[in-house]
Amino acid sequence: MDLVAELKKITAEDRVSTNETVLDRHSQDESYHQPSRPDVVVFPLNTQEVSDILRFANQQRIPVVPFGLGTSLEGHVIPYHKGITIDFSMMNKVLEVRPDDFLVTVQPGVTRSQLNKELKKYGLFFSVDPGADATLGGMAATNASGTTSVRYGVMRDQVRDMEVVLADGTVIHTGNKAAKSSSGYHLNGLFVGSEGTLGCITELTLRVYGIPEHIMAARASFPTLDQAVQAVIGILSAGIPVARVELVDEQSVRQVNQFSGTSYKEAPTLFLEFHGNEDGLKQDVAFTKELVFEMGCDDIQFETDTTGRNRLWEARHNLAYAYVHSFPGKKIMVTDVCVPISELAGAIRRAREVVTESGLNGGILGHVGDGNYHVVLMIDRQDPEEMRKAEQVNEHIVEDALARGGTCTGEHGVGVGKKKYQEREHGPAVQVMASIKQALDPNNILNPTKIVDIDRQK
Amino acid sequence: MDLVAELKKITAEDRVSTNETVLDRHSQDESYHQPSRPDVVVFPLNTQEVSDILRFANQQRIPVVPFGLGTSLEGHVIPYHKGITIDFSMMNKVLEVRPDDFLVTVQPGVTRSQLNKELKKYGLFFSVDPGADATLGGMAATNASGTTSVRYGVMRDQVRDMEVVLADGTVIHTGNKAAKSSSGYHLNGLFVGSEGTLGCITELTLRVYGIPEHIMAARASFPTLDQAVQAVIGILSAGIPVARVELVDEQSVRQVNQFSGTSYKEAPTLFLEFHGNEDGLKQDVAFTKELVFEMGCDDIQFETDTTGRNRLWEARHNLAYAYVHSFPGKKIMVTDVCVPISELAGAIRRAREVVTESGLNGGILGHVGDGNYHVVLMIDRQDPEEMRKAEQVNEHIVEDALARGGTCTGEHGVGVGKKKYQEREHGPAVQVMASIKQALDPNNILNPTKIVDIDRQK
Repeated sequence: MDLVAELKKITAEDRVSTNETVLDRHSQDESYHQPSRPDVVVFPLNTQEVSDILRFANQQRIPVVPFGLGTSLEGHVIPYHKGITIDFSMMNKVLEVRPDDFLVTVQPGVTRSQLNKELKKYGLFFSVDPGADATLGGMAATNASGTTSVRYGVMRDQVRDMEVVLADGTVIHTGNKAAKSSSGYHLNGLFVGSEGTLGCITELTLRVYGIPEHIMAARASFPTLDQAVQAVIGILSAGIPVARVELVDEQSVRQVNQFSGTSYKEAPTLFLEFHGNEDGLKQDVAFTKELVFEMGCDDIQFETDTTGRNRLWEARHNLAYAYVHSFPGKKIMVTDVCVPISELAGAIRRAREVVTESGLNGGILGHVGDGNYHVVLMIDRQDPEEMRKAEQVNEHIVEDALARGGTCTGEHGVGVGKKKYQEREHGPAVQVMASIKQALDPNNILNPTKIVDIDRQK
Repeated sequence: MDLVAELKKITAEDRVSTNETVLDRHSQDESYHQPSRPDVVVFPLNTQEVSDILRFANQQRIPVVPFGLGTSLEGHVIPYHKGITIDFSMMNKVLEVRPDDFLVTVQPGVTRSQLNKELKKYGLFFSVDPGADATLGGMAATNASGTTSVRYGVMRDQVRDMEVVLADGTVIHTGNKAAKSSSGYHLNGLFVGSEGTLGCITELTLRVYGIPEHIMAARASFPTLDQAVQAVIGILSAGIPVARVELVDEQSVRQVNQFSGTSYKEAPTLFLEFHGNEDGLKQDVAFTKELVFEMGCDDIQFETDTTGRNRLWEARHNLAYAYVHSFPGKKIMVTDVCVPISELAGAIRRAREVVTESGLNGGILGHVGDGNYHVVLMIDRQDPEEMRKAEQVNEHIVEDALARGGTCTGEHGVGVGKKKYQEREHGPAVQVMASIKQALDPNNILNPTKIVDIDRQK
């Protein structure tokens, strides 16, 4: 059987590639995980083609990996079992905007910034903001989140419906266009975060929001990391509906300044944002100011205009790239645990110790309003000792988070990097996940060996 | 095999009942669906007992129905295949309140009002409010929602973790205590709304909220139902974060006045509530007032004190009971569709026509901020013609909602009443649901024939 010829029959001559550069690009994501090439990359144009590809792959027992833009951080899209990578970059249309319903329907290859550009015309925005300009299909597949989740929720909270192609080529819808439903099992929730192991997303209907009447951003710096974390707990306890509250440690502010040309004070800092009506926002801001000074804040700077605010969030979003830029030749490893807020200060203190003990150089930052923090380590993939140390840091941090009632991954997903912690985190529930995987993909062709293992059939 | 004796061995002599009154009480819910008794009712005290009961039932292929308080509205808890009903009323402890994490852990038999009484001590409240004082286990099983969902979300949005006993007695956790997670498949979402068909919930960790700094309620009346609905769309489009926005038609306001002794103006009315800080709330209220008058509102009354506000919501909550009280001997049938907001006015106009054509007497009300509305019909279960007409009204309304991109049930769930619409609403996704059911409950002992059918094995 000639795999390439068969895929060309299903799609088109010029949308199936075994070009070395193309295979390389689909052999990796943005993480430190070892690359591995697929046999072939195919670029479908529509749902029917995706269905035909899957039906064919299922009959032939060929592994299939769906691919957005490759911005994942745990090796999700690396095709370790070779086979077909389906690249969704040509399915990149915004299909429908329904302003009255605060809904938009898109193809999976649409990126976050592309969507926001379109939505702006309607006075709307899409809330999930993972930093990278990922595709919406990829963001749904990993249940992405980011800076605004403390206010607007994670990717799963925005998905109203998806069109999904199952392993055997069947096309289903996972939801509907109503704001809520108690009908049937919650397939939206199940398929979001399933990382391509249960089906390929070919369309998404997403919740969007009106651009807030008033927005105000601020940077609040503190003598110690611990005081910054305590201030976050104070803000949340007071019930102030912050739209963003990001922790950036001293080292990370330094990276921001170097990479983005800013001159922010190099100290443990909270990047904050408030959304609301004019009067309500003023009261929120005043209350927050009072609170953070009580918690030891020594300086708060407000970004009152759009330019300053955009510069702030662009700098924050470029932080990962700032690290990559400062350590040429190294790869980024980012821990991603999430703990209950009451455990956050302790968890971050412990993380700081673990990093210091390892002798590695690591920055701490995170979406601390959710209890989600990252340790950024820059590592040389060719240096086994450094790799071992970094893995050990990750492991200590995950174990600490699980002991505190948290999770091994707040937003990056499992991929290959967090698979070894699944049993420890979920216990016998892993068997439930494996049963679901087996029921929906009996030949185990969909992104095999990601999230859960089931025995591969011939 | 002596079923009763076996269950007494697992639990205790006095916690297994075949008493006629007890069997009757567990033969029905609050709906019009035909009652049917279980063989036996058992009252477990803890997870271990639930696990032992299920392991035993699974070995013996005995159907099991979990039971909270029986306030469901689609026959969810009626044991049409007889067997064991597990009544969770003795597992009714609030286990832990974690104010800093805005979390509470409860047993499934705790009721909504019991929980709120406990939370008040901490300045917290639980947001989901279906009217009935249901148990939290039951509310999770049906993905309940209600008046506040427009602001705070539905039951599924509040569930952070559950302890669930599977068909074979295995005990799992569906989540963790972190605010977000991208680890593994989303079992929280899957088990919430599964109506006891995938497992029995034995513990829930739920998200709670700080009691808002300021609360204001209002009643806005309109010359026509249509204008009231248009006003809701206006309020939502303007981005005003209403905490509640309930539509109550003229007939239903009359019921409210009769039952609750109020003297509200008998016209199509919106019951509204606003939560926020003092200044923000004032601005929201002023803006809303302006908007509703533009939309034709002829009277708006504010409830400025706690007494007036409580009276308003108590009256709203008692509306179903008001109808039941006015029609002695009749049973309540409540339609429960949910449509995209842009379709709401058209859907409600159509519903009004359908009811008028049927010759039945029906009120219209609903959680219109979500696009979820109810037609309340009072019917005589012994009158086949009235039953047929009511079923037909329900069917027309469901078909209309599905044609508008909505769902057959916004919050009541499937039970037996909405089962016939599952195929029409979900299409081939029903097969995915059946596969999941079969994978997790291969002997089909858990609330069999609810939500989805799989062939019953002997």
